[in-house]
Amino acid sequence: MRDAVREATLAVLCEHGYQGLTVEAVAARSRVHKTTVYRRWKNADGLIADALGIAAAEPWPIPDTGTLAGDLRALARLVTAGFADPVEGPISRAFVLAAAQSDDAARSLHAFFARRHEQSAVIVRRAVERGEVPAGTDAVEVVRLAVAPLYYRLFITGEPIDEQAADRAAASAGAAARAGALTAAPASCPPPT
Amino acid sequence: MRDAVREATLAVLCEHGYQGLTVEAVAARSRVHKTTVYRRWKNADGLIADALGIAAAEPWPIPDTGTLAGDLRALARLVTAGFADPVEGPISRAFVLAAAQSDDAARSLHAFFARRHEQSAVIVRRAVERGEVPAGTDAVEVVRLAVAPLYYRLFITGEPIDEQAADRAAASAGAAARAGALTAAPASCPPPT
Repeated sequence: MRDAVREATLAVLCEHGYQGLTVEAVAARSRVHKTTVYRRWKNADGLIADALGIAAAEPWPIPDTGTLAGDLRALARLVTAGFADPVEGPISRAFVLAAAQSDDAARSLHAFFARRHEQSAVIVRRAVERGEVPAGTDAVEVVRLAVAPLYYRLFITGEPIDEQAADRAAASAGAAARAGALTAAPASCPPPT
Repeated sequence: MRDAVREATLAVLCEHGYQGLTVEAVAARSRVHKTTVYRRWKNADGLIADALGIAAAEPWPIPDTGTLAGDLRALARLVTAGFADPVEGPISRAFVLAAAQSDDAARSLHAFFARRHEQSAVIVRRAVERGEVPAGTDAVEVVRLAVAPLYYRLFITGEPIDEQAADRAAASAGAAARAGALTAAPASCPPPT
């Protein structure tokens, strides 16, 4: 039942946006009784929170290519491919737009990203262990940098994203990390040797 | 009259969002006759297009500190201070949210950012002339990188931004540019010497 409601939530959100995401619409689509949906998920924000909670808990294919450059490139390409996907792309966009319209949905989305950042940070921690980047490098910040230019293009400037944009974002994040710009120490200090 | 309508547009958009931005509301607020507003601006999207057009044409204090690092830091701090400003911040957010709800508003916002990117790119061109970054560095891409992490935090992950976040974003963009990660050539090639 939870799966049916979640799938209906994604479909309704995607087709009709946050405004159209009602308990009634999800009940009709999932064929779960309205009273049940209402009791368990309460409202649109409850439906979104659960759908994002499930998504955050799903296995996320953390790249392990052997180099930071390779891993960041794979990560940025994964994000790009996700937005290009005819099913996943519109759903991801719909979540970001819902977060712009509801504080509760925003909290759920932020928790989702915090989880994704934390899961992806292992890429950078491995690079620290291999000596590719300075000790003390802020792993989550490197992950943010590798994907931020893609979200900036998609949601702010409306510029297209493709593999080249992904590769550039990844290469930039890697170069900044290697140069020691992302350690806790001021960026002007040389990386520890 | 154009100024009055523009100020009313910003106030209404800010207080009531895209949904509340109507010719009637802007006419009432600006004390310009409804028929005049309707004839000249047509609808919410026309009002947004004009307000963003005026904003894009306004002088934008391009930093000129003498170094790329200093200029990018000043640029990122300018964006951060803008969002922290009690007047400018909510208006900037309102434009981004409007763009999420209207294709026409999105086109106006994208044109605004294209203009801002182009204006700011001089920072990087001067750095190329000074030999701070490789010839062939994509100037607009460096600008994007210096601000993208700030927009990513504000509009996607909901993480706070402050001077430290601005300085890190700027330092990362500068480091990536110096390392040659943002030239037209593949990122794995060494920068020209």
